[in-house]
Amino acid sequence: MRPGSVGTVTPQTMRFEEPLELASGARLGGYELRYETYGTLNEARDNAVLVCHALNASHHVAGRYSGENDEVGWWDNMVGPGRPVDTRRFFVIGVNNLGSCFGSTGPMSINPHSGRPYGASFPVVTVEDWVDAQVRLADRLGIARFAAVMGGSLGAMQALSWTIRYPERLAHCVAIAIAPRLSAQNIAFNDVARAAIRSDPDFHGGDYYSKGVVPKAGLRVARMIGHITYLSDDVMAEKFGRSLRTKDYAFGYGVEFEVESYLRHQGDKFSEYFDANTYLLITRALDYFDPARETGGDLMQALAPARARFLLVSFTTDWRFAPARTREIVEALVVNGRDVAYAAIDAPHGHDAFLLDDPRYHRLVTAYFDNIARELAG
Amino acid sequence: MRPGSVGTVTPQTMRFEEPLELASGARLGGYELRYETYGTLNEARDNAVLVCHALNASHHVAGRYSGENDEVGWWDNMVGPGRPVDTRRFFVIGVNNLGSCFGSTGPMSINPHSGRPYGASFPVVTVEDWVDAQVRLADRLGIARFAAVMGGSLGAMQALSWTIRYPERLAHCVAIAIAPRLSAQNIAFNDVARAAIRSDPDFHGGDYYSKGVVPKAGLRVARMIGHITYLSDDVMAEKFGRSLRTKDYAFGYGVEFEVESYLRHQGDKFSEYFDANTYLLITRALDYFDPARETGGDLMQALAPARARFLLVSFTTDWRFAPARTREIVEALVVNGRDVAYAAIDAPHGHDAFLLDDPRYHRLVTAYFDNIARELAG
Repeated sequence: MRPGSVGTVTPQTMRFEEPLELASGARLGGYELRYETYGTLNEARDNAVLVCHALNASHHVAGRYSGENDEVGWWDNMVGPGRPVDTRRFFVIGVNNLGSCFGSTGPMSINPHSGRPYGASFPVVTVEDWVDAQVRLADRLGIARFAAVMGGSLGAMQALSWTIRYPERLAHCVAIAIAPRLSAQNIAFNDVARAAIRSDPDFHGGDYYSKGVVPKAGLRVARMIGHITYLSDDVMAEKFGRSLRTKDYAFGYGVEFEVESYLRHQGDKFSEYFDANTYLLITRALDYFDPARETGGDLMQALAPARARFLLVSFTTDWRFAPARTREIVEALVVNGRDVAYAAIDAPHGHDAFLLDDPRYHRLVTAYFDNIARELAG
Repeated sequence: MRPGSVGTVTPQTMRFEEPLELASGARLGGYELRYETYGTLNEARDNAVLVCHALNASHHVAGRYSGENDEVGWWDNMVGPGRPVDTRRFFVIGVNNLGSCFGSTGPMSINPHSGRPYGASFPVVTVEDWVDAQVRLADRLGIARFAAVMGGSLGAMQALSWTIRYPERLAHCVAIAIAPRLSAQNIAFNDVARAAIRSDPDFHGGDYYSKGVVPKAGLRVARMIGHITYLSDDVMAEKFGRSLRTKDYAFGYGVEFEVESYLRHQGDKFSEYFDANTYLLITRALDYFDPARETGGDLMQALAPARARFLLVSFTTDWRFAPARTREIVEALVVNGRDVAYAAIDAPHGHDAFLLDDPRYHRLVTAYFDNIARELAG
């Protein structure tokens, strides 16, 4: 194990029998959440940090599974002993969202009423639904108040939602690469990705599990589209430019440019492990997220209930959720008199920067969590 | 007819028996070009303007067909009596590119060797191949030298290529919304669009004509992706924002947001009339265009043969071919001592702005062509 790793980890599952009322009006009767924890909950039970995941990630935030290949958790560079969120001081929880394909109840799960996978009948869930499901996990783990709830991108939206729905249950909100809502362009990209999946004949209206097929071609295209939006134009130019696989143009439609090779590989890989219904569901949760919708578009009013202190981070080359979009939240919080630290990190990597260990970014998060640790100690 | 329209027009077809050697090394034995003309060629035969088309357009630049619905040519606001390219003074030619699905020889045409449509066997063509095919049309029409060759986007790339390959055959090059080559991100978007088409089971490897099907689902996704890149984030926000089709969220995957409705409609429409093989071919021609490739990346050297005078126009919100990319060409031309007029028009519409009649943009093109007309008169 590399120094700084949490080492070998084991996921756990918590079952909730009480039905969950969803934003859509539907009700999910009983559900399971898959989660992982790193570090130790202290006696005061006040050093817990909840990490919310983004689109294609899961509860597997840090470390690796025993006997597995060497894939570490998606935020392994952020969470561990000596890492920015230091597991020698914090008890960190990674939780898989409802509707995911990584262990929590979702479209692939067996619907107890039918005895078959939910498939298309799995209800559309929202960021708020996820947060409502997560708070029950906190209850069961005996965590009345998190030291911090944190996440990047869609994960950051969950953290923000926590501050509105459960203001007393978190001391800090750490929201990275966030927007207060998707733009028309963001929604458009999601809709194209969904169109690719839904028009794949192997999708069968979402009920493909029983057919022994998977809409891989659609998932592949969806992931390729996603990847373009996660990277900056600059970093793509730098990583790939117009480099060719071979010396000359082949004058065909095979892989010609390195960027094609990269994208197709990402698409292929994704289509092997990700569930298409989950992709639809998670992108729709993104579309729907808009806390200011209930306050007539007034974000300040929407965030008025928040009591947490905030760290917000954006990245200069993120064109999916550009710094200006994060600043909307910063401004609304400042007007509300909240305590907000905000940094726009000059990073070349686009939206994906939140997953990378840019030193300025990690120093900032380290310093912020050091302060939280001092508060707890103090 | 609206004032300023060229009125009713009739396309013509020119057949070329001499084989065309393509950049790929393949040879196209004989081909046809569909074209339209507006205005009158003067006695000196020096008032001809060639209009090159972009991705999904054609030779139908201006006016309308008799008995047709009211769809005017794609640049009807630019070409006509009293319009920026005034057909009372200029003889304007619109030509459909090789490989298109609108009348020039392309994948849908019958391959004389097999008696069946070319389909997948139609060779990959390049911008340079198009220009080589166009110059023969000029020869046959008795046009030794164009007053101007012009186009937007991919059309502008053809105009630029004319200045390199046939420097003595045009007096002016009018290149709008152009880049000297696609970026990695541009190529990536094209590759995803092609992946959507090629993975549609109705594509049949490009030989779908005989199967009585068309890869509509793939074309639809391809067009949706394209549309996102043609519009600016701002104009999407302004046109659609997060407006819903109905008052409330429906919590499903149907059309929910106005932007989805718009995109799906555009995709559906396109999939009804555009040929999938042509889409592959034209996007690949875009990928391959890179005049500086033969000069080791040195654009100045690549443009050294050019003798034309230039008008280049970019649009501030065009993120597909941003102004900085046009400026690369401007700089290379200036260093070469060429006569260049350049304007970055502050327009909200993104790449699509080149098709719209933004007054500042149209005033500029009008003034430029007025000057050309004065030269000719002069």
